[in-house]
Amino acid sequence: MLGTVLFAPRDVRYVEVQEPKIQKPTDAIIRLSASCICGSDLWPYRGANKFSEPLRMGHEYCGVVVEVGKDVKTVKPGQFVVGSFCLSDNTCPHCRFGFQSSCEQGEFMSGAQAPLARVPLADGTLMATAQMPPDDLIPSLLAISDVLGTGWYAADAARVKPGCTAVVVGDGAVGLMGVLASKQMGASRIIAMSRHKKRQELALEYGATDIISERGEAGIAQILKLTKNIGADAVLECVGTQESMTQALQVARPGSMVGYVGVPHGVTLDAGMLFGSQVGMLGGPAPVRKFLPHLMDLVLTKKINPGKVFDLQIPIKDVAEGYRAMDERRAIKTLLRV
Amino acid sequence: MLGTVLFAPRDVRYVEVQEPKIQKPTDAIIRLSASCICGSDLWPYRGANKFSEPLRMGHEYCGVVVEVGKDVKTVKPGQFVVGSFCLSDNTCPHCRFGFQSSCEQGEFMSGAQAPLARVPLADGTLMATAQMPPDDLIPSLLAISDVLGTGWYAADAARVKPGCTAVVVGDGAVGLMGVLASKQMGASRIIAMSRHKKRQELALEYGATDIISERGEAGIAQILKLTKNIGADAVLECVGTQESMTQALQVARPGSMVGYVGVPHGVTLDAGMLFGSQVGMLGGPAPVRKFLPHLMDLVLTKKINPGKVFDLQIPIKDVAEGYRAMDERRAIKTLLRV
Repeated sequence: MLGTVLFAPRDVRYVEVQEPKIQKPTDAIIRLSASCICGSDLWPYRGANKFSEPLRMGHEYCGVVVEVGKDVKTVKPGQFVVGSFCLSDNTCPHCRFGFQSSCEQGEFMSGAQAPLARVPLADGTLMATAQMPPDDLIPSLLAISDVLGTGWYAADAARVKPGCTAVVVGDGAVGLMGVLASKQMGASRIIAMSRHKKRQELALEYGATDIISERGEAGIAQILKLTKNIGADAVLECVGTQESMTQALQVARPGSMVGYVGVPHGVTLDAGMLFGSQVGMLGGPAPVRKFLPHLMDLVLTKKINPGKVFDLQIPIKDVAEGYRAMDERRAIKTLLRV
Repeated sequence: MLGTVLFAPRDVRYVEVQEPKIQKPTDAIIRLSASCICGSDLWPYRGANKFSEPLRMGHEYCGVVVEVGKDVKTVKPGQFVVGSFCLSDNTCPHCRFGFQSSCEQGEFMSGAQAPLARVPLADGTLMATAQMPPDDLIPSLLAISDVLGTGWYAADAARVKPGCTAVVVGDGAVGLMGVLASKQMGASRIIAMSRHKKRQELALEYGATDIISERGEAGIAQILKLTKNIGADAVLECVGTQESMTQALQVARPGSMVGYVGVPHGVTLDAGMLFGSQVGMLGGPAPVRKFLPHLMDLVLTKKINPGKVFDLQIPIKDVAEGYRAMDERRAIKTLLRV
């Protein structure tokens, strides 16, 4: 089988790899309906995350079950499934608490930029649709697996409430999903920080009411102006740099929460500053499994169209071009046809 | 009039000071029924906070109104009042959001270790009792002003819920009030970290179910053992050092909140670590005014006895001994009779 491997920074190739097999009785093998490239895949691609061995890439997936281990009870061959990028048993104390991304048995999905993938902990990770979904819903169902689930978690952690003012820092695919999530949760004002025309347009389509193209001090000043110097009721941080985190913290009103889902890279926080500003924080890898039933329902009933975030769709054999397009910000998010 | 002035680290004296006067039409002057020394007063006392001019000390207070400015409407001379150490107008957007400690007009109380004190923003800061309270309730009413309100906020920010397991880091007066607050909020297990016998006893009296005397790695290991490696549902950080914050963050379960009220001194946080652990944080100076009506009711109906935290009561002229006793941890908290 062919699959996507990152050999070194900027050296990603679609090459011969081992075909996945059931390794544990709780595994499932799925045939992907589509795969995609995540913003977080760009960290090792750009050399910002070190790695010593070639990486099997891809953690977002949906598709049809091919085979299951003997202990798997909730899904069976032939069913269409979506799962979280965070694998979980969905029964441990952390899972029951709604934080499946910290599952006691948890691990991260890998190897999903390929036609077939092994999904460990299938019962606690996957959820099947009642029937085979139409092809046009595949991009949106794929989005649930990580990018939508992560944007949703940012809004949830930021405690977006009906009528509130939310700010979304970051106009990558996750930020755009954060806009969509804030809209679904009833925010009446959604301020998206973006300087890219195409992303601004999609943010507006997903429910943004205001676009701020300034960054740094100027961007902060703009948001304080829009909120009458009060700050936002909820802030979604969807980048992971010191600059974006600072931006997020400085536009949040006292007593509000910053939900942060951009994987922090070298970000340090001064507790004295946080204390003085009284801004709360909650972040981490999204417990997508918690939101999966609701998000699947929203997609299947066509109340949301997160799949539109894939503005580049290419055959998986051209995966290297997909990485380049995202790296150069020519594409928001690349869907890989398998 | 005499009042308490800190001239230099460890040089605190009860000396002649200017008598407070109405300066603004929103001011009130109160005659204190009692005053006290705060754990945070020890930071400048120990030289950990720099100051260039002598400091008029004291920000916790309750007493009888002597005089009010012409714009004051909700309290009048002769009434017994309690107020927050954070002065607030209680009408600005931050106050209406429940974060009076970030009031747009806000400032910190000062000069309350004296027989008389000026309370700015009287309408938004003070609350009067229906009648003159009995003398034996004065310590508990005084406690509301900061130490109880702050411990309460720690529990509130940590989202202590009925049936939950709460951990309180710090056995100072605020930590002990955090135990009391957690009990009132329905925590079924309250783990207090303390290595001092007298404080352990008071913690148990206030509702602690477990005492952990180990610190650092050993203390963390003990709590993880008690919680079956899950971590606590809510953690109250009531110290403000790197060690105490680390302790708090490492015993909190994923998805839980650390409510931190110890003023951070040189505490830095690694966002990557927070991201990985999925522990949330909310802290800052407590919006005591929000909790004041409820706490006053609990005290007046004798449902709680926070005043017991004052284990040293001395005449205010001996204030220097009060500071020494707290600095040397001979006293948990010193009440100053005026």
